[in-house]
Amino acid sequence: MLDTLIKNALAIPMTDAGDVIDNCSIGVEGGKIVYIGHETPEAREVIDAGGRIVMPGLINAHAHTAMCIMRGYADDYPLKSWLYDKVFPVEARLDERAIVAGATLGMAEMLRTGTVSFSDMYFCQPAVAKAAEKIGMKANLCNAVIALGDGYVFENDRAVRETAELLSKYGASGSIRADVSIHAEYTSPPAVWRRVHEWAKEYGVITHIHLSETLSEHEEAKTRHGMSAARAFEANGIFDTPVLAAHGVWLEEDDMAVLANNGVSVAHCPVSNMKLGSGSADTAAMIRAGINVCLGTDGACSNNSLDLFEEIKLAALVAKAEALDPTALPAYEALKMATVNGARAQGRADETGRIEIGLDADLIMIDSNSPHLRPIYDPVAAVVYSAHGSDVCMTMVRGRVLYRDGEWLTLDIEKAVRDVEEYAVPIVLNR
Amino acid sequence: MLDTLIKNALAIPMTDAGDVIDNCSIGVEGGKIVYIGHETPEAREVIDAGGRIVMPGLINAHAHTAMCIMRGYADDYPLKSWLYDKVFPVEARLDERAIVAGATLGMAEMLRTGTVSFSDMYFCQPAVAKAAEKIGMKANLCNAVIALGDGYVFENDRAVRETAELLSKYGASGSIRADVSIHAEYTSPPAVWRRVHEWAKEYGVITHIHLSETLSEHEEAKTRHGMSAARAFEANGIFDTPVLAAHGVWLEEDDMAVLANNGVSVAHCPVSNMKLGSGSADTAAMIRAGINVCLGTDGACSNNSLDLFEEIKLAALVAKAEALDPTALPAYEALKMATVNGARAQGRADETGRIEIGLDADLIMIDSNSPHLRPIYDPVAAVVYSAHGSDVCMTMVRGRVLYRDGEWLTLDIEKAVRDVEEYAVPIVLNR
Repeated sequence: MLDTLIKNALAIPMTDAGDVIDNCSIGVEGGKIVYIGHETPEAREVIDAGGRIVMPGLINAHAHTAMCIMRGYADDYPLKSWLYDKVFPVEARLDERAIVAGATLGMAEMLRTGTVSFSDMYFCQPAVAKAAEKIGMKANLCNAVIALGDGYVFENDRAVRETAELLSKYGASGSIRADVSIHAEYTSPPAVWRRVHEWAKEYGVITHIHLSETLSEHEEAKTRHGMSAARAFEANGIFDTPVLAAHGVWLEEDDMAVLANNGVSVAHCPVSNMKLGSGSADTAAMIRAGINVCLGTDGACSNNSLDLFEEIKLAALVAKAEALDPTALPAYEALKMATVNGARAQGRADETGRIEIGLDADLIMIDSNSPHLRPIYDPVAAVVYSAHGSDVCMTMVRGRVLYRDGEWLTLDIEKAVRDVEEYAVPIVLNR
Repeated sequence: MLDTLIKNALAIPMTDAGDVIDNCSIGVEGGKIVYIGHETPEAREVIDAGGRIVMPGLINAHAHTAMCIMRGYADDYPLKSWLYDKVFPVEARLDERAIVAGATLGMAEMLRTGTVSFSDMYFCQPAVAKAAEKIGMKANLCNAVIALGDGYVFENDRAVRETAELLSKYGASGSIRADVSIHAEYTSPPAVWRRVHEWAKEYGVITHIHLSETLSEHEEAKTRHGMSAARAFEANGIFDTPVLAAHGVWLEEDDMAVLANNGVSVAHCPVSNMKLGSGSADTAAMIRAGINVCLGTDGACSNNSLDLFEEIKLAALVAKAEALDPTALPAYEALKMATVNGARAQGRADETGRIEIGLDADLIMIDSNSPHLRPIYDPVAAVVYSAHGSDVCMTMVRGRVLYRDGEWLTLDIEKAVRDVEEYAVPIVLNR
């Protein structure tokens, strides 16, 4: 007997077939999808979708989840002032408890808006890993190495110690995974990049970086290295192992070829890039170049939401507006970014991102019976252009329902909010 | 005794003071705001906001509301094919019943997402007016005059007959108002513009137009008239009375000066402009020029949502991305577009768009206690950058609650959906 059967679903499997399956049953056993069809095999738990849309859970490929403690703390500031006067001083004051509180609230928001797995770059990740494990979400976690100043000693860096801990505890497989991270080209020298890369080789993990987010950063790299950041990373062998590069707003054609040739994934973060005035990444050119483009929310301090549905719609809109062409980045391609492509960027292509037998049952249900989604001529268009994260009515990870109809089943939402507001916010405000 | 008291609100009045009022009570009598303060005067009905945000209801300054019957019907199509192969043939088949069904579903979505008043351009508006009256929403309605082809006779035009009916029934004041409309520069000759303008003068109503939405349209106008569309309208006296111009994506600096000098309002529709690949309007330049910029959703066939919160956030994001400057269009300015500026564009500046004594009680409550809006450092930023229409938990027009906590109090939502799906959709699909 199956553990769970979702029946009567309008399924968007996101498989190569690109089809939609009406009146679909999805059977789950041991956390995996074991049945897809029109029958209704017996199961211990039956979830009647009532004709609602069921699709793979979303993957947030670039987040600083704990930053939701700073949601709305520093809006409409010039970028340098945002970073140096607002964000960095707060981050210097944060402790593990505040970060876990923020990460927990962020995970709650992600589950509520249909995200099942996220790639996160922040501090105190061993503690965040425990919280994610308890909640049941998937996560690729890293603490970015930043090596600025003459006094930098790799071995003494907190990020290095945390990375070593993550690598030894979680490694490259499982629901929680360690990534390694070079924060960005401009925050460490190539010698440090190569040390981080040693880990990537040894453990077979992904290297998560920021790349060409702002114009000044992109131009300054050329002065520093005599070549673009992408080329400098390549020249130092960093792209010999899988890399996930966030932003890529100012990548040139040449850089895109480098990324494509090396199988580097780019996490497009349209809301954050626009909100911080960084610009709009040219995803059409990236896709033409053969890059795997996925989506990220970035932190809630530059968004201020962790709702991937916003990124999906905006990715499609930005591509169309930039090309002055409404056929640019059609709905299905935008949705692939948040599912199939995100899974690939996380090293989870054979595990999640599609509804397919043998993959984990990482599924979401969208309340497509809501008036603002009706009528539905095309379920994919409904998801991309009309739905919001608030329309997600169920989020399942590895066959386990983590959110349903306003209830979080593996976390105490009131405590999560209280922990942030009573413990973390006073630290942010330095009170 | 007051009719209604909203107490314990975090009020964003959107008045010139630009402040936020904590623990605010708002008293309503005869549909008007009669009290704002910290006391709790007696009232027949008390609504405890429980610390939630209360602000003026939003104003959708450019809509084709009934088009939600075509939501998701024609996405990712080239613009001409979208219009000529998909939209126009459907519109030729639509009857009054289908249009009222679509307008009703659209009004339901607008109320649910915090819109209290809308400026609508479509067909069968006398019937839509009746539906809006019954539901209790405010609307400025027009049927656009399109005069193409040699056989055009003004008096025989359905739009002309409907406009005359609206003008005589509703005129320039009240909850439901008649606007007149020249569809666009490219769809009628100046002689017809001047006839429409005669009405505007006679009845003192607003002229609602489309203006410089696409590059080709903008350029072709210059060939046709030897000057831009904005200048051509001005030369024909059309801007002598109040005008609401939708889009303005390709306005040049010169055009902006013309609009500013004539007090023309521009309804910025960022989602639709991006989705149709029309481009991104330069609202920063418009505001610098002194234009009153408000927001519109356009139709749900090019959006595909009537949620103004999307437009508010996107207006801020587009301005920042275009200027590569995160300080461009700060949150409060974006919110003004959807409230104060929208009211002015509708000729309702002394009636709605602010929480002020003497104005209509057109108010919305936002469930700012939701986890994805927490913590709140700045309520305005929370509304602009974190909230969605789904966070609206109450919409009140003229003191009457029309939507609250999932319930529409003046319309049958199930019937609205059914009317669209059972009656209008088969017409759209020509079945």
